[in-house]
Amino acid sequence: MVDIATRVWNHKWKIDPIVRSLLDNDFYKLLMCQSVFRNHPDTRVTFSLINRTKDVPLARLIDEGELREQLDHIRSLSLTRGESTWLRGNTFYGKRQMFRPDFMEWFENLRLPPYTLERRGDQYELTFEGSWPEVTMWEIPALAVLMELRGRAVIADMGRFELEVLYARAMTRVWEKVEVLRDLPDLLIADFGTRRRHSFLWQDWCVQAMMEGLGPKFTGTSNCLIAMRRDIEAIGTNAHELPMVYSALAEDDRALATAPYSVLADWQEEHEGNLRMILPDTYGTAGFLERAPDWLAGWTGIRVDSGDPATGAETAIRWWKERGEDPREKLVIFSDGLDVDKIRALHQQFHGRVRVSFGWGTLLTNDFRGLVPGDRLAPFSLVCKAIEADGRPTVKLSDNPNKAMGPEAEIARYKRVFDVGAQERMDVLV
Amino acid sequence: MVDIATRVWNHKWKIDPIVRSLLDNDFYKLLMCQSVFRNHPDTRVTFSLINRTKDVPLARLIDEGELREQLDHIRSLSLTRGESTWLRGNTFYGKRQMFRPDFMEWFENLRLPPYTLERRGDQYELTFEGSWPEVTMWEIPALAVLMELRGRAVIADMGRFELEVLYARAMTRVWEKVEVLRDLPDLLIADFGTRRRHSFLWQDWCVQAMMEGLGPKFTGTSNCLIAMRRDIEAIGTNAHELPMVYSALAEDDRALATAPYSVLADWQEEHEGNLRMILPDTYGTAGFLERAPDWLAGWTGIRVDSGDPATGAETAIRWWKERGEDPREKLVIFSDGLDVDKIRALHQQFHGRVRVSFGWGTLLTNDFRGLVPGDRLAPFSLVCKAIEADGRPTVKLSDNPNKAMGPEAEIARYKRVFDVGAQERMDVLV
Repeated sequence: MVDIATRVWNHKWKIDPIVRSLLDNDFYKLLMCQSVFRNHPDTRVTFSLINRTKDVPLARLIDEGELREQLDHIRSLSLTRGESTWLRGNTFYGKRQMFRPDFMEWFENLRLPPYTLERRGDQYELTFEGSWPEVTMWEIPALAVLMELRGRAVIADMGRFELEVLYARAMTRVWEKVEVLRDLPDLLIADFGTRRRHSFLWQDWCVQAMMEGLGPKFTGTSNCLIAMRRDIEAIGTNAHELPMVYSALAEDDRALATAPYSVLADWQEEHEGNLRMILPDTYGTAGFLERAPDWLAGWTGIRVDSGDPATGAETAIRWWKERGEDPREKLVIFSDGLDVDKIRALHQQFHGRVRVSFGWGTLLTNDFRGLVPGDRLAPFSLVCKAIEADGRPTVKLSDNPNKAMGPEAEIARYKRVFDVGAQERMDVLV
Repeated sequence: MVDIATRVWNHKWKIDPIVRSLLDNDFYKLLMCQSVFRNHPDTRVTFSLINRTKDVPLARLIDEGELREQLDHIRSLSLTRGESTWLRGNTFYGKRQMFRPDFMEWFENLRLPPYTLERRGDQYELTFEGSWPEVTMWEIPALAVLMELRGRAVIADMGRFELEVLYARAMTRVWEKVEVLRDLPDLLIADFGTRRRHSFLWQDWCVQAMMEGLGPKFTGTSNCLIAMRRDIEAIGTNAHELPMVYSALAEDDRALATAPYSVLADWQEEHEGNLRMILPDTYGTAGFLERAPDWLAGWTGIRVDSGDPATGAETAIRWWKERGEDPREKLVIFSDGLDVDKIRALHQQFHGRVRVSFGWGTLLTNDFRGLVPGDRLAPFSLVCKAIEADGRPTVKLSDNPNKAMGPEAEIARYKRVFDVGAQERMDVLV
């Protein structure tokens, strides 16, 4: 039966919003936002969108007017009463009132700050400037908008059934991955795919497919809105953004050398248990662990997000042993460029030696590779990063030089301060 | 938005009907019904459902109560005003008023006659007795009900997403076939898949996918209801049923030998053009053509429905040449156990030598092979045939002894009368 009102309502749409809620954001952004709101509320930052896949000509594919409409729509969003109630009342990582009243009050009044958009050749230059806790909330929605608008552009001229079969193929692919994963004993895996997802509806489908197909092996999603709607765990801890900005704010080389640990000292004051996850690779994992204070070895685990993941995990295991910790009680979360084969191999290598968990991103929520001619729906490497803090450039090195960013001189300085030796260059797919 | 009325309406369903209209039937049944109504309105026939795939235990899979509900529902159906208007007003095969007023009046008052259902071991014995024009209309709905109830039984305990992926896989498979077929130059292909379809909705999906994917290469569907709703051609001519009953009614061997030609003499009075299609294999193609009267060579074409299809078509081509006809003006319709590879091979072999068309059945509308464990959704060989006419058994030989049916002594008699020599035994998949 045709629901006339819905149909007429749809006709009235000015835009089909890509981001439909301030909670359509990664949970770790909220945790970091609260931390920043507490510790650095007045720091001014600039975030910038960077398309590392230059042969995807975003400005040719995406209409600037449409892009502005989507971004403007995000600026019109504010937390609804129900969303606020969920954040205030829900249990996250086993803890009630994860978000403090002063933060919630601020968040309830938040509107995202202005953006600057300019076309440069075939790419867009999209930047966000303002106070750190406000600007940081742009990262995920901005990425999701660009990624989905590009997909919509490609899909625009497909037939009704061609389109249905496109999704049929993508669904089959996700399900075949689920069928492989459910045979892995004691697997724990979460959805980390918001930022480079094909679309919101698609991410929501993938999450539900994981719920049905994996049962308790599926631990939750990084996406707050989906976690709320599907009544599952919101997952996430912290990201490179914190050490990058803390480091940029360091007055001299000495302060710089300790900045990444200050981040974690602040974090330790706020969080415990599974939220005490070290992200060690911002300026090289090996050096970071070597110079780490002893209290850090007492943390719950490590997230491996660049470089060869097995090497990263082995480094962590060695480090725990050196510091007198039992690796079998430690948690290793893999979250970089995962797909089923890699997940299976890592699970096989580390299952039983440490507690293992996976944060599966782009190749869960956007594996449309090979599904259209010219592969024009394949995901690409789009990031949105803090590039400046209080007027100073940020730097990221990571365990893969292809992921490094920042001014050349600053990169050299950071390499010296953090004593980063030779690094293996690895392709960045997504 | 939830459409409350629809949802509540759905709750009230007593059954989810498999056959929802008397037009949910093959077009050739209507043509034959009109012919029978004109020429043999008082002949009494018995039709019987035969599951040639014994290892599909229908009576264990399908609840007898549910089966009766579906069959009773079909008995409650009558032609709606709109359906009648379409039959009366539409153009079929380029002809207005294909269905005569007296037939339409009779059809408008038709309710299908009673059925007899008994369980025998793991199979059902389902028979229909009554006047030929009434009973004949049971064949397709009865087959569709059994096939779909079996599928529903298999699907009953699948999860929501498992189910969605099942259809995603099936859709992808159909579309991949369409992608192969659309590259064949001058292809003409129709849907002949009503009787052994997975379900009505699925057949409707397949038809629409063919419409979008093949454009004018897709010539229409055998299903009247879908033809009406999708505004496409209804396709079909005649079936073995006619020569089988005419032959059973023959008083002696001499009358038997000419019975198959009497069928076509009656048909010729009613139809012209593309409806003048010979179905030569009921009692062996070679002998049938050899002994055929000359006027039959003037008919438009031949449908090849058993035996090796290439052999059948080559036989027809030789026969036309012998009778002084130009094969390039003749039409060959292949309709037996087709799938993409066979279609492509036959198209390649005969394209340009004769006009070629394909009637694609079960492996279009029910190719769920390999999609569930134990292959329990694979189509199987279910037929519903006239087994008796005015108290005499019917016989079918076909060009494949595995498709032969009838009492042994009668089969021997028919083989003698029709001078059928050695035949190649071929597996019957569907």
